[in-house]
Amino acid sequence: MRHMLNPLDFSLEETESLLELAADIEKDRFRYAHVCDGKKLATLFYEPSTRTRLSFEAAMLNLGGSVLGFSSADSSSASKGESVSDTIRVISCYADICAMRHPKEGAAYVASTKSSIPVINAGDGGHQHPTQTLTDLYTIRSLKGRLSNMTVGLCGDLKFGRTVHSLINALSRYEGIRFILISPPELKVPDYIKESVLDAKNIEYRETTSLDDAMEELDILYMTRVQKERFFNEEDYIRMKDCYILDKDKMKLAKPDMYVLHPLPRVNEISVEVDDDPRAAYFKQVQNGVYVRMALIMTLLEVEKPC
Amino acid sequence: MRHMLNPLDFSLEETESLLELAADIEKDRFRYAHVCDGKKLATLFYEPSTRTRLSFEAAMLNLGGSVLGFSSADSSSASKGESVSDTIRVISCYADICAMRHPKEGAAYVASTKSSIPVINAGDGGHQHPTQTLTDLYTIRSLKGRLSNMTVGLCGDLKFGRTVHSLINALSRYEGIRFILISPPELKVPDYIKESVLDAKNIEYRETTSLDDAMEELDILYMTRVQKERFFNEEDYIRMKDCYILDKDKMKLAKPDMYVLHPLPRVNEISVEVDDDPRAAYFKQVQNGVYVRMALIMTLLEVEKPC
Amino acid sequence: MRHMLNPLDFSLEETESLLELAADIEKDRFRYAHVCDGKKLATLFYEPSTRTRLSFEAAMLNLGGSVLGFSSADSSSASKGESVSDTIRVISCYADICAMRHPKEGAAYVASTKSSIPVINAGDGGHQHPTQTLTDLYTIRSLKGRLSNMTVGLCGDLKFGRTVHSLINALSRYEGIRFILISPPELKVPDYIKESVLDAKNIEYRETTSLDDAMEELDILYMTRVQKERFFNEEDYIRMKDCYILDKDKMKLAKPDMYVLHPLPRVNEISVEVDDDPRAAYFKQVQNGVYVRMALIMTLLEVEKPC
Repeated sequence: MRHMLNPLDFSLEETESLLELAADIEKDRFRYAHVCDGKKLATLFYEPSTRTRLSFEAAMLNLGGSVLGFSSADSSSASKGESVSDTIRVISCYADICAMRHPKEGAAYVASTKSSIPVINAGDGGHQHPTQTLTDLYTIRSLKGRLSNMTVGLCGDLKFGRTVHSLINALSRYEGIRFILISPPELKVPDYIKESVLDAKNIEYRETTSLDDAMEELDILYMTRVQKERFFNEEDYIRMKDCYILDKDKMKLAKPDMYVLHPLPRVNEISVEVDDDPRAAYFKQVQNGVYVRMALIMTLLEVEKPC
Repeated sequence: MRHMLNPLDFSLEETESLLELAADIEKDRFRYAHVCDGKKLATLFYEPSTRTRLSFEAAMLNLGGSVLGFSSADSSSASKGESVSDTIRVISCYADICAMRHPKEGAAYVASTKSSIPVINAGDGGHQHPTQTLTDLYTIRSLKGRLSNMTVGLCGDLKFGRTVHSLINALSRYEGIRFILISPPELKVPDYIKESVLDAKNIEYRETTSLDDAMEELDILYMTRVQKERFFNEEDYIRMKDCYILDKDKMKLAKPDMYVLHPLPRVNEISVEVDDDPRAAYFKQVQNGVYVRMALIMTLLEVEKPC
Repeated sequence: MRHMLNPLDFSLEETESLLELAADIEKDRFRYAHVCDGKKLATLFYEPSTRTRLSFEAAMLNLGGSVLGFSSADSSSASKGESVSDTIRVISCYADICAMRHPKEGAAYVASTKSSIPVINAGDGGHQHPTQTLTDLYTIRSLKGRLSNMTVGLCGDLKFGRTVHSLINALSRYEGIRFILISPPELKVPDYIKESVLDAKNIEYRETTSLDDAMEELDILYMTRVQKERFFNEEDYIRMKDCYILDKDKMKLAKPDMYVLHPLPRVNEISVEVDDDPRAAYFKQVQNGVYVRMALIMTLLEVEKPC
């Protein structure tokens, strides 16, 4: 039995198969409308994340399956002192596969060791969120036709941004990737990632504090939200959060085939005036998230492609 | 693409078609059991309203579709600062139609401008709640065989009562409607509604503080709850709320074919002893709400009637 | 129309039929995958209980039906002052059967008097929780091949433990049952149960404070959680809760065919080292709970067994 705890759990080849399957689903979603008939997905969200939860639910429903679960810890047995290990054993009696979001790093891993159904990590603290990363890969691949040989700008909170770290890891497995890391000095990519991933694999990158300067070089710009809860005081947050706002003027500096991604939700780091730019791909990314999750559920349940 | 934001969004003819469809559904619900197979309804409830949410869910399930969503803002991305405009774009990737309840007036309208799926307003603050109004119309039509030429009593909180204002608006489009507006002086129908609707359309009405005096004239009595949260102080609420309690004695004053409606939940404004009176129609109204919502979902999704 | 409010609502023969049906479901669950197509279960949880709620939902989904409801009182109309009687009348318009959990004793009974759909009591305060009891019976029957002629140890909080009281009542209907009641003096089985059930039916039992002493005599050991909320002060709780911890050493004292049950969630009253013992049956019990609830839903809805 396979789980999906970390985006790197799948080899390059397995990842390629998954993205291929997602692409086939995108072409004709309705061919897949009954492949998971009678299967149940449990969504175990120990902290709320509507977007992620509903994406999983839409994916399972699109496959003909059904859904049960909880959307916050208050309504779970966690409050009665039950361990994640016990909960997953119970849930294994109720569902065929589960997606778990938990505030503690490693929670999904612990669950997987006791589970008799596949566990998908839907976010464990600041650690991993593999279906977001797979969605990012799928979106880049679908927009650019490839996952290699391009310059990817990562902008915003590169210090705490879980999705950014995962994406660096995941893209580092492809050839000819070059990163431009755009952030205020306080929110730079941590040294351990630079050393263990970028330097270790001889991946080209440069750091800059200026989004304007980077724009014209980019094939992909990955924007992130600067989360209030990451800052010690309100002032630092306010000073920081408006530094890296993408607007129409900045978009003029970019290539005509440079695409903008964002894991959402955004607050104001992308001006709404950018939404109508054909290069704005962040809502397309949401749609892709459903296809990727459909492909992942099928893969982990070892469901056959319909013929 | 159509939305349902305001009960008047549909013309008289469109409303008639909708009510006809609801009546056909009531006759044989099971003929409709698969017309929405594979379709998904998103219930986006930024404030809790179990009755309304479950009515929508029952409606969609009765049609063969499935449901996803959230039941309060805590478990939504709203708490991360996302705008309704962004949320609806995301939800458009997950579902085929949505029902939105929001504490702010105009929220469903804002959503509809960015949505790529039909939006049903399931209540926006004190503003509109069109499926309640359509349910009221359907119930009156089904009990009396018509929506014209009758005397309708509206009783209770006529100042803040959203459903009452909507019903006045909706019934004002039919011939020969006469209103008796029964409320304490503090909770009378606001002047702007009297002027812009009743006077502007030359609709006959009178105001009274006595429910007893009005009873014998009525064909329909629409009771409403006096909500505590509408009052500045507890004393005013307590004095007021018991003024207009419908009981067995008052029912004796009414015609044998006068029906009582109530949008529910009731607190004590209708005595439980009235429940067994054949003229008590408020639970029938709940059942009708499911048929009306089924008809509305089908209409907005442009689903064909089964043959 | 039947309800399930108390485990004793079903006669011995009806209980036997139910357990037989559950056993047939366990043998081949997929034969039952469509017997409730088009039916809806409402889960009305006025207090959270994830395990129980999800067990009901899994059961209904396994039968091909669908589910709607709420998982805590905050998101229900209860907060608007609606009575349980009114809520059940509304829910009767939305669903074909309902499972209700409520903090007040007797709530499910009140609901059943006004309901036009079968009501299953999913726990009413410290009173009854009949599907847990039926699950316990099914598990014992399935492990031992019988429900009569055995020695059953009940250990932990025997004073407040609702499941223990119900199980005593339910097992007292079978021949040759002998109880060993293992608890600290403060948490003994209340006198009214000893008098009205055990003494009244001449059922053999003895009380002890020592789990070790009882072990070798037992055919079944039913462990319970000592709930913090039952104690007046923290110290009493801490002193008490570790008194009756089942571990590997204690298991060595037991017969090779003695099975351990627990209604879950456990905190630490069963050491995790016991989980791998083939006599640990508490996770099997969770799985059985789904089969029993499937059988109960079918029985109350009068759904035919598939041929």
